Amino acid sequence: MVLSRRRFFEELAAVGGLSLAMAGMDALGFGFSSAQAAPPTLTGKGKGTRVVILGAGLAGMTAAYELTKAGYDCHVIEARSFAGGRCQTSRKGFTDTDLMGHKQTCDFDEGLYINHGPWRIPYHHRSTLHYTKLFGVALESFVNDNDASYIYFEKGKGALAGKPVRKRQIAADARGYAAELLAKCVGKGDLDGALTPEDRDRFIAYLISEGRLSPKTQTYVGTDRRGYDIPHGAGVDPGPGKVSPPFTLTDVLESDTWKALASLSEFEQQATMFQPAGGMDHIAKGFERNVGHLIRYSTEVQKLVQDDKGVEVFFKGVDGAVGSVKADYCVCTIPLSVLKNIDLGVSPKFKAAMAGVSYAPVNKIGLQMKRRFWEEDHFIYGGHVYTDMPGIGSISLPSTGWQGQKGVILGYYAFGAEAARVSAKPPADRAAFAVAAGQKVFPQYAESFETAFSFSWHLAKYNLGGWAEWSEEGRATAYPVLCEPDGRVYLAGEHLSYIGGWQAGAIESAWQQIGKIHARVNAA
Amino acid sequence: MVLSRRRFFEELAAVGGLSLAMAGMDALGFGFSSAQAAPPTLTGKGKGTRVVILGAGLAGMTAAYELTKAGYDCHVIEARSFAGGRCQTSRKGFTDTDLMGHKQTCDFDEGLYINHGPWRIPYHHRSTLHYTKLFGVALESFVNDNDASYIYFEKGKGALAGKPVRKRQIAADARGYAAELLAKCVGKGDLDGALTPEDRDRFIAYLISEGRLSPKTQTYVGTDRRGYDIPHGAGVDPGPGKVSPPFTLTDVLESDTWKALASLSEFEQQATMFQPAGGMDHIAKGFERNVGHLIRYSTEVQKLVQDDKGVEVFFKGVDGAVGSVKADYCVCTIPLSVLKNIDLGVSPKFKAAMAGVSYAPVNKIGLQMKRRFWEEDHFIYGGHVYTDMPGIGSISLPSTGWQGQKGVILGYYAFGAEAARVSAKPPADRAAFAVAAGQKVFPQYAESFETAFSFSWHLAKYNLGGWAEWSEEGRATAYPVLCEPDGRVYLAGEHLSYIGGWQAGAIESAWQQIGKIHARVNAA
Repeated sequence: MVLSRRRFFEELAAVGGLSLAMAGMDALGFGFSSAQAAPPTLTGKGKGTRVVILGAGLAGMTAAYELTKAGYDCHVIEARSFAGGRCQTSRKGFTDTDLMGHKQTCDFDEGLYINHGPWRIPYHHRSTLHYTKLFGVALESFVNDNDASYIYFEKGKGALAGKPVRKRQIAADARGYAAELLAKCVGKGDLDGALTPEDRDRFIAYLISEGRLSPKTQTYVGTDRRGYDIPHGAGVDPGPGKVSPPFTLTDVLESDTWKALASLSEFEQQATMFQPAGGMDHIAKGFERNVGHLIRYSTEVQKLVQDDKGVEVFFKGVDGAVGSVKADYCVCTIPLSVLKNIDLGVSPKFKAAMAGVSYAPVNKIGLQMKRRFWEEDHFIYGGHVYTDMPGIGSISLPSTGWQGQKGVILGYYAFGAEAARVSAKPPADRAAFAVAAGQKVFPQYAESFETAFSFSWHLAKYNLGGWAEWSEEGRATAYPVLCEPDGRVYLAGEHLSYIGGWQAGAIESAWQQIGKIHARVNAA
Repeated sequence: MVLSRRRFFEELAAVGGLSLAMAGMDALGFGFSSAQAAPPTLTGKGKGTRVVILGAGLAGMTAAYELTKAGYDCHVIEARSFAGGRCQTSRKGFTDTDLMGHKQTCDFDEGLYINHGPWRIPYHHRSTLHYTKLFGVALESFVNDNDASYIYFEKGKGALAGKPVRKRQIAADARGYAAELLAKCVGKGDLDGALTPEDRDRFIAYLISEGRLSPKTQTYVGTDRRGYDIPHGAGVDPGPGKVSPPFTLTDVLESDTWKALASLSEFEQQATMFQPAGGMDHIAKGFERNVGHLIRYSTEVQKLVQDDKGVEVFFKGVDGAVGSVKADYCVCTIPLSVLKNIDLGVSPKFKAAMAGVSYAPVNKIGLQMKRRFWEEDHFIYGGHVYTDMPGIGSISLPSTGWQGQKGVILGYYAFGAEAARVSAKPPADRAAFAVAAGQKVFPQYAESFETAFSFSWHLAKYNLGGWAEWSEEGRATAYPVLCEPDGRVYLAGEHLSYIGGWQAGAIESAWQQIGKIHARVNAA
């Protein structure tokens, strides 16, 4: 399907150039989606073919769901006592024991939660949205960009360092001054070679609009868009209020606060963003309602052997019981970080390819606050606090439960060495660390804090990391090897996609691999 | 309360300069709210004082609610058969007959609606949010800015004229080229006088980040943030996909599409934006549950007389019955456009002030579509289509009912002469006009259209316009007159605020005026 689509657009381009191809794509609605919008159509024979699926995460359950629908006989083996893989939600009663032996039971109030795995669904992840629609998972919009958010950078210099400032103030000022400087250059004729006289006038108009410059002087003197010192309101007092004066360009630059800006967010971070109402694991539960009966839970894969007739997977239950299952094919969705330690009957080349992929340390902490002070006192509804505080990454405010009494803040979301350092602490110390950091931004943090739940993906026995991190070299060498089957073993998961760390990567990888199995079955 | 707050900040500024005052405001959480966050505290005597309130819109019901709580004896007169004023929602069965005699009954499917009056609540409109919280009105976030939205400008020139293009493409390209040009000027030394050497390096780093420039060449060569021609996905095909190439700067400029950009939205339009789940009139209903028993519905005010003892309001029911009510004070929330034709016993100066205010023609149309093609085919979830098509203003997609079957599009939202021209047509022709325009952006428009409901505020008998439009001169001369009472008559409404056209303006104006009445009662 992807191929024929591509071919169609190549033909359009050959006939009418790129713009026709683009128009075609837009007209057909393909221009901006994730790669695949729907599962492969598995018509033809599949009935009775046995497939063993390792892992009941989103990739594994996608494979089980689609293959079963096409008549395949699927068996899923899952190490955990529940399905979903990384698609998890911590809410009251959720327990975790990490590899350092730290045991936690989530004690959030009923109805409160944090998605410690995936937490966002971009609007163009059509594969994920395919299943939310299919399974009736109610969505609500996720506030991923909030003009009122604080930027808190403490490593910079100047008047704004170590002070929470509103994102919109930095956005207005940085872009305002830049527009003024550029208008100045255009006015002096510095860019006469780069702009036609006609473009020049329009460009000045654009700069005035974009930077909110004074149309007459083409200077940036601040704007009511950055906010008010005395808010506008009723009557004559406050009446028009008092607009806040701009920061200086030097203050914006020295403080590093501009680092929180970009002309446009990363493609995967742009509006409109979604989250399932009530927790991300509603997606997992949607799959589980359909394929749960195929899953053998609490069962670890010990070994896989294969020959040209089939595969056999040996497993061990947490209760100590051992056994095996034979199948024609295997879809293996176990993260490479874990898989490389399993006795997998694949070629040395395949094994070598698996060994070269590293996984990201990733941790998150949910902090239940007894009062939504970020809404009530700071007028920040959802979104993220951008900061350079070590080990914090970002602080995020919930996009649900508006105007309620309590809420759970994402106290840190950090990667790499910083995440590893913080997660080495006992849970109570992680919470204390997160609360102390947040206190610098919100004075109400400590007095409002009630209970925390932290999760470290690199300390999760069945994950050993948040997601695969491909080097450029790995993408060129190991990745293509792992995308192809080794004998009758097909790998699937976010790690075999360019949408790494997102549920769409897992789903689309599964779609691709089961498409290949089906083609092979039908070619046989 | 506003005064003491202001005084506090002035003292802070006197002691430590503006930055201390600003820090104080941020610390106290006042920096970015609308003027008033809570109703005035009406302690002292109020009991038994009679207040007649003209109009059961948000200003009138705010006055009735707060005064009644303080022991006042309130009587509300409302011309319509329902409360809410402009806070209305059209859903199945809602009827309207406009001043041209066009009668419509809304025939949207159950659960579908359009807010033909106010439809958005900015996060900093704390007064509105005070009542949504108080009355338990559930909020959901309103997608007011959508990177995937189309910009459709047909009056410009060049390759992008008359073509829907994604907002994110224009944002990335315009800002990317601008950053490149500015980096070039900085590199050539054109701005050496304006930037210190240290700022210069940081500024270049900012431009690279903001414009997504190549760090080496400091040129804009496009970015994956603008989207993909072949979306990235699983495996090696599509694998990394193919990033869409940038438009030329000339194409962006000539097409006028840059007009849809700004460094930052207007203060009232910034994220996070809200809407009540199920319709804006849930706010009206919240008030009505509390003060509905005080309202005399379907009753037009005929005349008001006052002396130094009190006021008497003469009214006529739609059933023809006439009567009057006497009170100590009057809070009059009738729009000036309507009020100036009522025999109001006020001073010539006050009358003259009322006469000088014009009201905006404003119209909206809801178009029920049998399929959410904007989501399914175009991957646009909420937000607005920006266009220069005459009479359209903007097209907006619903921020609710994600992934459902049907939805109601706001087919136009236009002001001024253009709005007047379109609303002069019969309702069916308005719908045909809106569908034909939308068809240029979405090819699925006409085939999906089912039923329409349009509303023209300038053709609404009890409004005669969407909101007050103050000229600079009017603000300087008439406005202060109308903000003060004339005898025992106090005006209130969005027209007596600098948050015109927003519910917060109505509420805060009412808060201010009842505060004045209460001070007078207590001073007496």
